This record gives sequence, structure tokens and C-alpha cells, in this order.
Amino acid sequence: MNNPRIRRYFPSVLLSVLLAALLILPAAADEGMWLFNRPPKDILQKRYGFTVTPEFMDHLRLASISFGGASGSFISPDGLVLTNHHVGRGAVQNLSTKDRDLMKTGFYARTRAEELKVPGMELRVLHAIEDVTDTVLGAEKPGMTPVEAADARQKVFAALEKETAETSGLRGVVVTLYSGGMYHLYKYKLHGDVRLVFAPEYLAAFFGGDPDNFTYPRYDLDICLFRIYENGQPFKSDHYIRWSAEGVAEGDLVLCSGHPGSTGRLLSTSQLEFLRDTSYPFNIANLTRRQAYMRAYAAKGEEEKRIADRNLFGIENSLKATTGYQSGLLDKTLMERKLREEEALRAEVRKNPELEKEFGSAWDEIAAAEKAYASFFKPLAFFDRANGFYTTYFTIARNLIRLAMEKPKPNADRLREFRDASLPSIERGILSPAPIYDEFEILKLGDSLTQLKEELAGMQEVKWILGDRSPRDVARELVTGTKLKDVEHRKKLMAGGLEAIFQCQDPMIKLALVVDPVSRGLRAKYEKQVEAVETRNGTLIAKAMFALKGTSIPPDATGSLRLSFGAVKGYIENGKKIPFQTTYAGLYEKSAKAGNKDPYELPESFLKKKAAVKMSTPINFVSTADSIGGNSGSPLVNRKGEFVGVLFDGNIQSLPTRFVYEDTVSRSVIVHAQGIIEALLKIYGAKPLVDEILGKK
Amino acid sequence: MNNPRIRRYFPSVLLSVLLAALLILPAAADEGMWLFNRPPKDILQKRYGFTVTPEFMDHLRLASISFGGASGSFISPDGLVLTNHHVGRGAVQNLSTKDRDLMKTGFYARTRAEELKVPGMELRVLHAIEDVTDTVLGAEKPGMTPVEAADARQKVFAALEKETAETSGLRGVVVTLYSGGMYHLYKYKLHGDVRLVFAPEYLAAFFGGDPDNFTYPRYDLDICLFRIYENGQPFKSDHYIRWSAEGVAEGDLVLCSGHPGSTGRLLSTSQLEFLRDTSYPFNIANLTRRQAYMRAYAAKGEEEKRIADRNLFGIENSLKATTGYQSGLLDKTLMERKLREEEALRAEVRKNPELEKEFGSAWDEIAAAEKAYASFFKPLAFFDRANGFYTTYFTIARNLIRLAMEKPKPNADRLREFRDASLPSIERGILSPAPIYDEFEILKLGDSLTQLKEELAGMQEVKWILGDRSPRDVARELVTGTKLKDVEHRKKLMAGGLEAIFQCQDPMIKLALVVDPVSRGLRAKYEKQVEAVETRNGTLIAKAMFALKGTSIPPDATGSLRLSFGAVKGYIENGKKIPFQTTYAGLYEKSAKAGNKDPYELPESFLKKKAAVKMSTPINFVSTADSIGGNSGSPLVNRKGEFVGVLFDGNIQSLPTRFVYEDTVSRSVIVHAQGIIEALLKIYGAKPLVDEILGKK
Repeated sequence: MNNPRIRRYFPSVLLSVLLAALLILPAAADEGMWLFNRPPKDILQKRYGFTVTPEFMDHLRLASISFGGASGSFISPDGLVLTNHHVGRGAVQNLSTKDRDLMKTGFYARTRAEELKVPGMELRVLHAIEDVTDTVLGAEKPGMTPVEAADARQKVFAALEKETAETSGLRGVVVTLYSGGMYHLYKYKLHGDVRLVFAPEYLAAFFGGDPDNFTYPRYDLDICLFRIYENGQPFKSDHYIRWSAEGVAEGDLVLCSGHPGSTGRLLSTSQLEFLRDTSYPFNIANLTRRQAYMRAYAAKGEEEKRIADRNLFGIENSLKATTGYQSGLLDKTLMERKLREEEALRAEVRKNPELEKEFGSAWDEIAAAEKAYASFFKPLAFFDRANGFYTTYFTIARNLIRLAMEKPKPNADRLREFRDASLPSIERGILSPAPIYDEFEILKLGDSLTQLKEELAGMQEVKWILGDRSPRDVARELVTGTKLKDVEHRKKLMAGGLEAIFQCQDPMIKLALVVDPVSRGLRAKYEKQVEAVETRNGTLIAKAMFALKGTSIPPDATGSLRLSFGAVKGYIENGKKIPFQTTYAGLYEKSAKAGNKDPYELPESFLKKKAAVKMSTPINFVSTADSIGGNSGSPLVNRKGEFVGVLFDGNIQSLPTRFVYEDTVSRSVIVHAQGIIEALLKIYGAKPLVDEILGKK
Repeated sequence: MNNPRIRRYFPSVLLSVLLAALLILPAAADEGMWLFNRPPKDILQKRYGFTVTPEFMDHLRLASISFGGASGSFISPDGLVLTNHHVGRGAVQNLSTKDRDLMKTGFYARTRAEELKVPGMELRVLHAIEDVTDTVLGAEKPGMTPVEAADARQKVFAALEKETAETSGLRGVVVTLYSGGMYHLYKYKLHGDVRLVFAPEYLAAFFGGDPDNFTYPRYDLDICLFRIYENGQPFKSDHYIRWSAEGVAEGDLVLCSGHPGSTGRLLSTSQLEFLRDTSYPFNIANLTRRQAYMRAYAAKGEEEKRIADRNLFGIENSLKATTGYQSGLLDKTLMERKLREEEALRAEVRKNPELEKEFGSAWDEIAAAEKAYASFFKPLAFFDRANGFYTTYFTIARNLIRLAMEKPKPNADRLREFRDASLPSIERGILSPAPIYDEFEILKLGDSLTQLKEELAGMQEVKWILGDRSPRDVARELVTGTKLKDVEHRKKLMAGGLEAIFQCQDPMIKLALVVDPVSRGLRAKYEKQVEAVETRNGTLIAKAMFALKGTSIPPDATGSLRLSFGAVKGYIENGKKIPFQTTYAGLYEKSAKAGNKDPYELPESFLKKKAAVKMSTPINFVSTADSIGGNSGSPLVNRKGEFVGVLFDGNIQSLPTRFVYEDTVSRSVIVHAQGIIEALLKIYGAKPLVDEILGKK
């Protein structure tokens, strides 16, 4: 417990309370997405007899890759990167054309010259972590309102990120942990030259389709290989994960390094209720709607299917995930447990007048903020979060205008996503040459404008944008009228700044301009009336927890790099034993049973090379290792730090672990290392790639 | 010739040219609105045997008052200020209500306690002038584009104005002279506590009405008296103009100190053509339209007339003035003379290769800029200059949003009217409690939106604002819906900054927000493609003139304090001699002839007190002293520096002097000092006021 912040906030009078409570409620079983600079040494030692060394953690960290919302790892000294096919999917689709559908055909670059540069892709490697809790919390002065404190923190964030860029050339990002109880500065190296090396056919990668998504047993070759280049050459590094020669056995310890996006295990119950009653119902309805019209669009023909699939996978994935999370919140047992735990903590706080004085009101203040939040959630979602303007063109237009508005401001005064550290990504995004399909965009925008009209017809901006016209006509006019299709045009607007934006007659830019003030107003309202209050009081609750339980509880996921661990382990479902791994035999059998029909259709290559495949080779396996959305593509390593698989899913029972971890039936689903080699070698004839992976050259 | 800037730009090789040309084209006759720090000493000495001393100029400057677009002067040591009734008109109207129409009844505060504080009025006195030409031009670096140079100058302006505020507490304003050939920093003291002391009835002040406006002979008591207070006490100063005990005789020299707004005598012919072909036709049509509907509104009843008259006077005055200016430009003789003069100057320049190289292209570049200007003049006029949104509420809304947007920027980066030095005035304007009448505002806004639709229906913003709805319905909704009527509401929005603006649901604020981006775009286009080019090349032309003629030519009027001079002198019109002055006898005669009917109706007081009035007392007189709009309220003084009258008009022949001065028939029209005393004493019984003016107490 060498965190000086805790010492600062908890005078010795509290130490007895702290020590007395230290062993209450420790992290359960294999729970936790742990910080790389605070790995669960004791638990790993105790439960698995595994000793974590700093060298082990450093190497794993430097071999791990952030895909921005997903994960990956280096698997060769020549910059070869492994992730999931569904993570690389956008790249594969953007490299596809009407006549070259890589989703359908798969892709394999037999030589480096054949590797395809991915437009707009940027990968990040975490080079260092620094605890900046004191610096950040030191900026908050006594008597500051939550908003003033938030502003003060934002300024420190901006300064730290700027300093990181200037002193190291790395991209600094301050990560807020424990709702503001702890702040770490993450320093990333950015890689902007990424090329596609290998992708299986979509049918192999997503065997079972949406029906089997979030289920187990599974049989998916959900992998995709990229290579990072630097100065036109493959990027060289010793920090890559060596391939395991052995498989995994039931009970084996596996460690998972990835970027879990978000969990809500430490949220207060009023926040969970907000999700359950306001946010999730909106998202589920919204996603359902999008799924329906995109499926209808996809049914029109091959090309339409190819185009719709670019969005449809993500939508169906989110829909299934959100429905799963919501099932947890709708589960009375879970919510009652949450209420009970919260009440227990509050009771502990109440027992001590000093704790009560400092932390006692935190829960009620959050509850009041959630109530306010619900009152303007819809306009916020439609305007600032752009659900009313669902088209890539709007994203580009808004980023163009906001970039022009924010860039001239001092770094610390900008909208946070336009701080210096993020500008290269924003600019790369604006200039991405990824294809956009107008008919599809009209469909998306038309439906979202329809929804906007249904929900918020009374707002002045909605009246302006739609008047008495059909939302679909407005959408068509906007999409066909915009010149943002032309990357050169975007470049010119970006270079011309606000003046060019204001003089530009592009209808999508004009839309973004008319939407901006009200969006910013709603966002400011959210940040001040909700977020700042959640942070301030979340910090207080975290402090109360630290006081009562120490920091033995891992923080919630925040999209930053984390270590989780667990056992390779099957489970019992409806009284039936689900084995820990599946094999190629199972894959072929399942396909045959379904008459090789969608969603169990195998690609040509799998059918043609069936005879060559060793049927007992494992293809997927499961583990109790904690994971959530964002962990897709995470490498799994064994005790020796060797690659044993790549995480690509969780079973349906794992979804409520967003709020409460459990390991009787909840599992992470992983592509088996041996299954990968088998496919590459026997089905795809990718011997040079296998040689590189296995270090045979 | 001690201007170092000229020495710097004109190496000795040019001196011979300069000396040779020095006597070509000096200022003609009594021409010129001269700078207070460069008075026409030689001319006054030569033509009138009058010696200008620094003390004379300093005293006159400190006794002169800027009314922001008009003029006035101190006439007592106790802060008593004299100007025209039509200058004080807005104040008189704002102090009127349905039941107390001061326009009709006139006003006289018999005691200081009765003096009425004027909402939002701010007067300025010029305390110092500094030549900053070197500093400003020093900021322009070789190779800068016109736009970069303009930006560089703006930054220097902002810095000088800021420095003035910080070092002296005065408001600094950099005045651009000779189209950028010279820059002076004017330092003003501001007076915000101004009270109404005396105003005659509208019928006496504006006898003859619009038909007699810009004509002579005239018989108007166009005066208004205010008093400046400081810390609740009358403002004390020795710098006031003592009243002349004598009248004026034909041929007498008079000097006029005031703020002529704008002349175009040094404009290049392409700029005159732009005014003639684009700007004036638009303004004349626009003003004619406003005049028509306001007259119709005024005809509805007493109260409507009172309300409409607040705007109608200014509109009719501008309409008459602009029509007069335009008559000059439509006069082929005048334009041919302009072309000839310009060609002569260009020929002189062409003769000398060095001059040709430096200045030769200036005229053509301005011509190109005027052509560009004409192409977007209409949207600029309707949007950035707000002709499409003609209501006081829009002015308030726009100032609120722009204040919130500009204030956080560094001073030098703001829209120029939002620089620190101007903020107090802007804020005062926003919070002015002057009454606003909704039905009248609906009429104004409705008509301007109608016009907007007629002219620019294709613009996206127009479609948004109007859709398929009637402009008048939209206007009604906006005016009745806005809460900007409430000064407290404005105060709250002003304090809340951009966030409050963005969260505010006020329809007028939303209108101003949607109009702002395109307005700013057009303005930037104007500033860069027109103004910067005009300035850059206007500077070059000025330099060419300096080189060929020295600085014997006075600069064009720019709204800053100037000295003009001339003789008291009648003229011949249509073969008939027009005497230099009119008398009360003439006034009563004219009224009687018209059956005392509008516009020659005299107020009750004049009729009642007729017997007391000495009929031979002069009431108005004319002089050749150069003047133009903005000179209204200027004091006229004799050789002793004593007050002999207050300028209130020019005859119709004076209007084309905007472009070419002449003094055979063009005259300034002045209320005679003796006529003022006669009225105050005999008609209004304002003996205490007369005693104060004549220094009898």
C-alpha cells in the first residue's frame, strides 16, 4: 500500500477501520481486469502458484496492441500482428471492392509485396504507465464545485498529455480509474502503417453467424493477421509472443492481455437503474431498428449484402451484448445483491462519523444526477451522440467543423477528444479513403432522421432540418448533395479552417453546423450535471472502498490495457457438461448436419481441404478469465508466456458479468493456437506464415 | 513634412518628383475635414488671416463630443451638452411612453433633479491623438499577402487599444486614414451617465419635416440639451465653448468641430462605380421599402406614429442622403471628372518607373476586388449586415452570441467590434432598457424576412428559417416567442457565456445561431477579398499621392473628430439669391402660409408666445464649411472660439460633396446661437438654462 494519495486522504485515525475491514469482500475467484502496474500477484501465487515477475509483465505489455476498442498482439519479430477477424473486419471490408470481396474470398499475401496497406488504421502499443493521481487530485482545490474540479482535472490531463508528446514523442492518455479514485498516465507508441497479411473467409471466421454469436460450443477461425511497418520496412521488435508448442489442458492457468472496454461493477445502483430504465432500452430499440432495415437491405443482393455487412455485424454484436447486459440488470437477484452490497458499504461508512461526513452523501448525489440525466438523455443521444444523423458523412462533417473550432483554442480548453494528443487520429479519420456507399448512407440517415422526427419533433433544430418534408427526401438530398465523398475536398476544408467551413456550401457541413450549438449545449449539460457529479462522488465512493477494503478490488474496465487470468475449464449447462474445447471434427460435423447451409456454411477451401485436416485438432476453447467487449483479439498466454489462443467472444452467460463477475458458467471463448496453425498450414497452404509464427526461419 | 513614414517609403531619388508636383491639386477652396493634429494652418492663414494655435485646437477638441455617429459640444462648465434634436431623438423617444410623449410635448428639466437619465447612452471626448503609423505599418512584413497584412495590423490595433486602456483608462481606437496611408490612435474618455435637460417639441425641431430635410432656407430649432454626470454630480470642466454675444455676418469665418462619418473623395473610380451600381441601388430600394411600411404603420394611430417615428426619421434621412449621393454618382460630369483625375494621377505614376513599379497596379487590383464584392454583396447585406433580420431583438441576440463566442478568444483574434476596448459598449447595448414594441418588431422582421425570401430563397439557411411558411408568421413566432424582452434574461444569458447560449431555447437566439456561421463566412470573404485589397491598394494610392502632392490633401472622413472651416455665405439658386440667414419672422410666415398644417405646423408654445418673440432674431444660417452625415450637432465657433451655432443639415446640393467638394451652391445648415437663446428665453421660459449657457451665474 504505497499509494501516497491514500495516505493523504486517510489520516491515521482511519487506519484501524481500514485494517479491520481489509479482508471484507476481496475480488472473487478469477475475477478482475487488473492494472499492468498492479498485477494480482498474491492471488496468482495463492490460487495458481504462479509468480508474476516485472519482466513477464513488461514483455506482455509491449507485445500487446490496442486496436482502439479491441486488442491484438505481436506474434513475430517482424511486426506480425494477430487479432480477430471481426476486429480486422473494417479493414478487410475497406480493402474490398465490388469485384474483390475479401470478406468472401479471404486474403493471403504470399509475399510481403502483396500485403495491403489499410486505409486509416492506427495501432498503439503501451510503452509506459505513470501514476499521476497526486498531480491530478492536487489540481482540485477545496471548495471547488464538481464542475470546477472537472475543469481543473481536464487542464492537468491536457498538460500531461502535451508534456508526454513533447518529452517522449509518445501519445499520452490519462486513464481515470475507480471513477476518479486513481489516475494513471498511459504512454502509447502509435503505428500508422498497417498492412493486411491474412484473413480467412468470413464463413470460416464467423461460422454460426449471429445465432451462434455469444454462445459456446463454437468452431470459429476468428483470426486476422496484419503487419506493422515503419519507414517502409516491417517493424522489428523482440517483444512478441512466442507460440506454444503444446495445447492447453483443463485446469491450466491462462493469462489474458487486452483492452476490456467498460464494466460497471463499481457503479452505484442508481447508475445501474439508469442503464436499465433509460440507456439500454433506448440502445436496444435503436439497434433493433437498424438491424431490421439493414437485413432488409442486405437481402436485396450480393453487393447490398457486402455493404450492409460492414455495419450489420457490429450492430448485431452490440445488440446481443446489450441485451445480455440488460438481462443481468433485469435479473432481480443480481440487482438485489447490488443493492445489498451498496447498503453494506453505506452502513460501514455510516458507522464512522468521519467517513460519514466525507462520503455519506455520495450515493444520493449520484442518484440525483441520474434523474437529471434521464430528463435530457434523448436529445443528448440524438444530437450530441449523433443518433439522429447516422451517416459516415455526418461524422466527417462534424469532425471537420469541430476540428476547425477547437484547434485554435488552448489545448486545455478544447472538447476533450480534440486535444493535441488526439488530433492526428481525428485528422486521419477525416481523410480516410475508406469507401462510402451513398444508397446505404441515405438509408441510414433517412431512418435516423425519421426516428429524430418521431422522438423530438418539437425541437427548433428538428423543424429546421426537416420542415414538412419526408426525412428520407431530406436524407437523399443531403447525401447526394455532399461533396465530402471527395477526400481532396475534405483535405481542402481541413486546411482552410473555420473560414473555409463557414464559406462552404456543402449541405452536410451546413447540417453539422446547425446541429452543433444545441449538441454542445446538451453535452455541457451532461458533463456538468451528470459526469462531473458521477466522478466527484464516484471518487468519494472509491475512497470509502479503499478505506474499508484497501485496493484489493480491481478497477472497472476503461478501455485501457488490463491483465486477467483464469483456468481453462468447461462447465455445466442445463445439466449437460460442456467440454472445455472443440475440434475440427465438431466443426465439420455441425456444418454437415445443417446441410452446409447458412449460418453453418463452410467456405470452399474448408470443404476442398477437408481430407488434409487432422480432425482431433482443437479449434476453440473456453476459460474463466474475465473479459468483456474490447477484449476481442486479446492474446492468451500460458505460464511460460507462450501464445495459446486469441480471445474472440464470451458465452451468453458471461454478459451479465459486466456488473457482477461469476465463474460457474460464465466463460471467455478463445481460438486455439493449434487450430490456427492447422488451418494456415492444411487449408490455406500458408507455410511461410506458419514458419514465421513458429520461428522456424 | 515631418512624417517619418513618408521619408521611409520615398527615398531621396523621388524627392524631385515630389517637389515638382507639390503644388498640383491642393485642397480646393474651403474643402476639407482636417485632422485635429494636422490643422490647415497655412490655408486658414492665407484665406482668412486666421492663426490657429495649439491651445485653440486643444480646447476645441476637449469641448467636442462624439455621440457615436453624430456630434455635440460642452457649452457650460457644469457638463451641459448641446447637440441636435435629431441626434438626441432616440433618447427622447426611449424616455417617452404611451402617456408621456416627449417628442410631442418637448421636455425641460427646471431643476437638476428633474433631468432624466438616458438608458444606454454613452458619449466620448477625445483626450489625445497619437500618430502610430510607423508601429502599424511596421507590423507588415515584405511578402505578406493583403490578408496577412490585415491580420498583422489588426493585432497591432488590438495591442494599442489594450495598452491605452491599461495605461490611461481611456478607450483607444486606431483610426485608419488615407485608406491606410496613415494611422492615428485616438484616446477617448467615456461618459456613461447622460441626462436629458431640454428638448423642444418635435414640430419645432423638425419644422418642414421630411420635405424640407436637406433643403434651405430652413427654420428649425433642431437642438437638444443633455448633461453629463460623473459620480452622481454634474461633470465639471473648463473645456466648454463660451457663447458668442454677437451674431454672424456674411463672409465671417466659422470653424466646425465634429465627426463627419464618411466621404469618398479619395476612392478610386471602381469603388465609386460599385457604390453607384450595387450598394446604393440596394440601400435606396431597401430604405424606400421600410419607409413605405412604416408610414403605413404610423398612419394607424397616435401611438403607432410615436413608435414608427423612432425609426422613420432615420430611414427618411438616410434615404434622402443616399439618393443625394447617388445623384452625384449618376452625374456624368462628376464621374468624368473623377475618371480624369484618377487617370492624371496614374499618368504621373506611369511616368516614373519606380513609382509605376510600386503603385502601378493598385487601381486594377481594387477594380477586381469590387467586381468580386458585387458577386456576394446581397448575401452579405442580408446575413452579416442583418438586413434579412431587421429587429432589435436580433441585434441583441447576435451580440449576445458573438460576445460569448469572441470574449474567450485572445483580444487580437476577435471580430474587431468585440475587442476589449469595445466590450463595455456592447454590454451596455445588450442590457439597454430602451422599450421595444412587439407589433412593430414583427412588422420590421416580417418584411425583412419577406425580402430575404424574395432575394435568396435558394440559400440553405433561408430554407431552414422559412421553410414553406409565411415570413410574417415566422416573424410573429420569433418576436412573440423570445424572452429577450426581459433585460434580466439578457443579463443571465450574458453571464452564462456560450454554454448558457447553447442551452437556451429562445427562438431569437436560435435564429442568431443558425445565421452566424454563414454570416461569418461572408464577412471573412469580404474582409479578405475586398477590404484587405482595398486597404492595401488604397494605401499604395495614398502613398503615390503623398509622393506627388504631399499631404496637402485632407483625408476622407472616417467618423473621427475633424475640423472644417468656411465662410458664412448665401448663394444663388435658379437665379435667385438665397440669403445667408433666416429669422423667426420667416418661420411664422411660412407656417401661416401653410395654414399651420403638417409639415409646417408650429407647436402650441410657439403660437402662444409669438408676441414675445423678436421677429428679426436669426434662427438658421448657412456656411461653406465642409460637412457630411455625422457632423450633425457639431458646434460652429467664430475666430474667438465662441459658439455661433450648431450644424444640423446640409442643403440638397451638398450631398454630392461626399465625392467632390464644391462651394458655389453647397452649404452646411446651422441653428443660429441667437435663435437658440431667443427660443429658450421667450418661448420656453428657460431662464436658468440661458443663464448657465451665457455664464451669468
